[in-house]
Amino acid sequence: MTSSPLSPTARSTIRRNPVRARTDRAELHAVLDAGLVGHLGVRLGSGPDDAPVVLPTGYGRDGETLYLHGSTGAATLRAAAAGAPVCFTVTLLDGIVYARSAFHHSMNYRCAVVHGTLRLVTDPVEREHGLRVLTEHLAPGSWDATRPPDRRELAATAVLALGLAEASVKARSGPPGDDDRDLPAPVWGGVLPVRTVLGEPVPDPLLPAGTPVPARVRDRRLPGLSPSA
Amino acid sequence: MTSSPLSPTARSTIRRNPVRARTDRAELHAVLDAGLVGHLGVRLGSGPDDAPVVLPTGYGRDGETLYLHGSTGAATLRAAAAGAPVCFTVTLLDGIVYARSAFHHSMNYRCAVVHGTLRLVTDPVEREHGLRVLTEHLAPGSWDATRPPDRRELAATAVLALGLAEASVKARSGPPGDDDRDLPAPVWGGVLPVRTVLGEPVPDPLLPAGTPVPARVRDRRLPGLSPSA
Repeated sequence: MTSSPLSPTARSTIRRNPVRARTDRAELHAVLDAGLVGHLGVRLGSGPDDAPVVLPTGYGRDGETLYLHGSTGAATLRAAAAGAPVCFTVTLLDGIVYARSAFHHSMNYRCAVVHGTLRLVTDPVEREHGLRVLTEHLAPGSWDATRPPDRRELAATAVLALGLAEASVKARSGPPGDDDRDLPAPVWGGVLPVRTVLGEPVPDPLLPAGTPVPARVRDRRLPGLSPSA
Repeated sequence: MTSSPLSPTARSTIRRNPVRARTDRAELHAVLDAGLVGHLGVRLGSGPDDAPVVLPTGYGRDGETLYLHGSTGAATLRAAAAGAPVCFTVTLLDGIVYARSAFHHSMNYRCAVVHGTLRLVTDPVEREHGLRVLTEHLAPGSWDATRPPDRRELAATAVLALGLAEASVKARSGPPGDDDRDLPAPVWGGVLPVRTVLGEPVPDPLLPAGTPVPARVRDRRLPGLSPSA
């Protein structure tokens, strides 16, 4: 699986601007690992007029499996867990592309799109594993440093798995793609990089004064979230 | 319209964690105005097994109307323009919430979700207006500073409008919501702010040496994208 190429199916084959398609599975993993929030699209019904709902959610990756979680009471997760097809998309914005024409203005970005069906994880060992993967993606080091979920918390949490077999990656980088006719115009063209950075940790007011910020928070970086434009 | 409250319909009423729901239309506008990329969910067919597709796209807002655009050849936009119901979601990540328990780890965020049906804009005056709104949202000042779209470019571009009548806003801010029983533990709790910032402009290599960076690029800020945690 890890060596299979991307875009093996019709709906995961990129048709618009195929020059922007990436076909290396490592690039899929890199985009997913760099992001923190994905957007899950799911239909809440199966009728012809049922609209999709798109909601943001955290996630974590282990090999060729993404783990998602949510409240067992959430309608979207109930629908997805019941076998509704989903689409899960992670987009990283890297820059704003200024061109000499309005038409060629664009964005530099990396985007991973995963198609599939969510599997409700019921095995207790895999459930705990999925929650660990999720927590460590959001907050590396936190799983071992904090209280693990108790029985009540586990009962309130749905853990879902999404395989990466059917996925695509699309990206744009570099300068604007202006028409030759526009290049002589005295208009600036280039890229304004967009970066995602971490600020100074803000302690919970309930924390005893002087509690040190642990290295897992203080030294955290966001590798891959902000490449050069 | 501008004074109507949010969440007027069943599907735009927030049921999970309603304490996080915002009901002020100005907050919807603020989230949409602060974001640069939204995620559009649309079904490519109307059968019971047709999955949604979730793709990132730029947008711009004028009053109670969002404008989107895309290639006239894109399958998702063709489906949406044909009247398929859509969901358009803009999420701003503000911080990573570190708790004393794995369960209470979370994110601080603001998220706007818009439900509706896209309207294909055909009136030439509104098409140009929509493209101006989109371009000015992505790159303020660029519409007047660059070459406007010509007939061929206009023909290749679909402009779509989405009304904001049916929308919801959800947000989380502030410190972790730890259980009282966990507060005595010697574990750090707090928020690691996540900020979106602009880097130094990168000139197109095709630009004549010494071409100055215009103020619309050099002085650009991203207001509202990075509030305090």
